[in-house]
Amino acid sequence: MRDRESPIDGSRRASPAAGQPSPTALTLYFAPGSSSMAPHIALHEVGEPFDARPVSFARHEQRDEAFLRINPQGKVPVLLVGTQALTEVAAILYFLAQRHPQARLWPHDDPIAQARVISWMSFLASTVHPARRQGIDHARRVWGLAERRLGEAPWAVGEFGIADIHLFRLFWRMRSSLHPSPQEFPALEAHHARMLERDAVRRTLAIESAIGYEVPA
Amino acid sequence: MRDRESPIDGSRRASPAAGQPSPTALTLYFAPGSSSMAPHIALHEVGEPFDARPVSFARHEQRDEAFLRINPQGKVPVLLVGTQALTEVAAILYFLAQRHPQARLWPHDDPIAQARVISWMSFLASTVHPARRQGIDHARRVWGLAERRLGEAPWAVGEFGIADIHLFRLFWRMRSSLHPSPQEFPALEAHHARMLERDAVRRTLAIESAIGYEVPA
Repeated sequence: MRDRESPIDGSRRASPAAGQPSPTALTLYFAPGSSSMAPHIALHEVGEPFDARPVSFARHEQRDEAFLRINPQGKVPVLLVGTQALTEVAAILYFLAQRHPQARLWPHDDPIAQARVISWMSFLASTVHPARRQGIDHARRVWGLAERRLGEAPWAVGEFGIADIHLFRLFWRMRSSLHPSPQEFPALEAHHARMLERDAVRRTLAIESAIGYEVPA
Repeated sequence: MRDRESPIDGSRRASPAAGQPSPTALTLYFAPGSSSMAPHIALHEVGEPFDARPVSFARHEQRDEAFLRINPQGKVPVLLVGTQALTEVAAILYFLAQRHPQARLWPHDDPIAQARVISWMSFLASTVHPARRQGIDHARRVWGLAERRLGEAPWAVGEFGIADIHLFRLFWRMRSSLHPSPQEFPALEAHHARMLERDAVRRTLAIESAIGYEVPA
């Protein structure tokens, strides 16, 4: 695993010549503790080597011209596949799951389960993620929906998969900012504990916390 | 096409006995003009018969107990597949595209294009859709990102597909509420015009406008 730290270098996109990387080599732009933690975990789950490029919010690197050429939205995560930039957590997770069927992050043989995975990720990105902006009460209500949706199941949809990685990162973040009591979201707490047992999750948290979280409290 | 109008009947979920529908028969719960327009269009694109169930916001039917049993979030769209409820526009579009490969709504042979479709839909659901809540200026900035992302291309990703349907419905709605000048978003305007040439789009608009739009201005 090349978790090499290096400054943003947008020129890689236009000319990936240095070192002759493969045309489908992976590069992850991430900011420790942010949404990019989910694809970061997924990369460790699938076990493919990748180039890790931390983007510092404190130094406003997400607004650097070099980075804006890669993602005009100025947001992480971005996964470069060779020179092609993929954005959005759900898309990067989907791509990695398809590229590595052996990692079993996707219900390859069950179309309804596949759609339910997409549904969970869409719900997380469009309803859960932005909920905090509408106030703490709204955020708690929305997390209540997620708690109910998970219910008694160990994982979001059938076996462990990409929706769990997405869910974990958002709940991890909410826990550290809203400090819910352990009784408030018991299903989500149990899910969180199961996720923390995974090597890929532990390794990602260790790497990101060593760099230093820069997300707002 | 059975665009049968009938009141919400949540009991269908628990017991789909009446009329012995197939265990994978499709039922769409939709509100004219709302997000559910996208799956409604997709159903017409794929050409599979479905049971159409309008949900009236004016009569607060999305808060009816029967409907909340189907979707605890109290939101449309919901697609019932037999008795299984699918929520979220992206998930329903994905499901219909997989179920009907002949409709060519999905880049079946191109993994990066697939991820880019998911990326577009995630961007639409998580960034574009909620933008209006943060004010008109923010909404225009976000639509500027969509304009730039579409660029010169006729469709969102390669050939026509589900991301275009999702994009169309959001731009259709924005046009009728923010009334941008035709010069403000030329790529999106051209995309909108291309979409209006499609039979499935025209048919859906005709059906939904005949029932009556109930979305806020």
